[in-house]
Amino acid sequence: MKWYQKEIRLPAVKRGFHLITDLVESQLPELEDIKMGLAHVFIKHTSASLTINEDADPTVRQDFESHFNKMVPENAPYYKHTLEGSDDMPAHLKAAILGSSVTVPITNGKFNMGTWQGIYLCEHRDHASKRWLVVTLQGN
Amino acid sequence: MKWYQKEIRLPAVKRGFHLITDLVESQLPELEDIKMGLAHVFIKHTSASLTINEDADPTVRQDFESHFNKMVPENAPYYKHTLEGSDDMPAHLKAAILGSSVTVPITNGKFNMGTWQGIYLCEHRDHASKRWLVVTLQGN
Amino acid sequence: MKWYQKEIRLPAVKRGFHLITDLVESQLPELEDIKMGLAHVFIKHTSASLTINEDADPTVRQDFESHFNKMVPENAPYYKHTLEGSDDMPAHLKAAILGSSVTVPITNGKFNMGTWQGIYLCEHRDHASKRWLVVTLQGN
Repeated sequence: MKWYQKEIRLPAVKRGFHLITDLVESQLPELEDIKMGLAHVFIKHTSASLTINEDADPTVRQDFESHFNKMVPENAPYYKHTLEGSDDMPAHLKAAILGSSVTVPITNGKFNMGTWQGIYLCEHRDHASKRWLVVTLQGN
Repeated sequence: MKWYQKEIRLPAVKRGFHLITDLVESQLPELEDIKMGLAHVFIKHTSASLTINEDADPTVRQDFESHFNKMVPENAPYYKHTLEGSDDMPAHLKAAILGSSVTVPITNGKFNMGTWQGIYLCEHRDHASKRWLVVTLQGN
Repeated sequence: MKWYQKEIRLPAVKRGFHLITDLVESQLPELEDIKMGLAHVFIKHTSASLTINEDADPTVRQDFESHFNKMVPENAPYYKHTLEGSDDMPAHLKAAILGSSVTVPITNGKFNMGTWQGIYLCEHRDHASKRWLVVTLQGN
């Protein structure tokens, strides 16, 4: 039984949905030691989130941004938490809807995802700084 | 410490929300070996998803389909990813909102869920083929 | 390798979003035994859910309640599952959108979350009773 845990600093990105599969894997040489296990990727923030979706066509990620802006609008009349900017409260809501972590199976030293799956960093703030992940790998 | 991992092929189903608890459990005789642990169920696709919800009344699952179609409509004017059909981009969005995996506690050889909880396969495409799961069991 | 699993009874709360980080941690003295690991917190219900978000300003949690009531309304004309009250079907939908579990990294005997992150109990029913969690800790 093996356990590895490390914090990974992501570069600051603009608001939107960004593929980070390769970046994350490149920081995890320990993956190769695991034949069968799980990878837990956690983001330590409340206005950015993680999800898994289509990694081939960039317009999918653009449509994610458009749809989430419609489904969770800025300046809704019922928002009370408005002091940190019009993008702040929607960011918290989007982060909760998408989630703060993804768990991916590991098989033979690699993430065992589908052909079209990739990990998205979902940046919901207009002017975000770098984001921290905690990645925990476990397995045999 | 025990680890089991297997890929399970689900039958093709029509668009909507479908209970798969019994089908998944029937493929996992290894569950009986685990007194205390976790089951991670992952779907290897970006237009279908997994969630846990009410397993008794079929109208709940019908209302899930109705509500998700309203909350994530087809043919939204802002969609750019439209070449794969009007059901495709909503399918990606619904999959991200619901999630690509569920993790369930294992206690005394069984899924330890609430009385009314079941695992849903959420099929978001009109003409989907069979779907693959990766199930990872771990525990003592 | 250590495993701990226990069921925790949460007090009945009113409909809305409630911070439970301290309450959960206070029930888990076993956390101190784990240098590196994961905590899985699962709710055994289909009309309440768990998420992780901002733990400082109470208006954030009020805005969560307002926004989810807008995004998943009561008495939608397409609901068929209406016999258990107008708050019931929205509760199931909100629970699926937010999710039935959160997984948090453990580092040096503590939850390794961001400065502003806390665990929310999301109570979606008007007159809910006490809720059960299953918490599973694992690590070295």
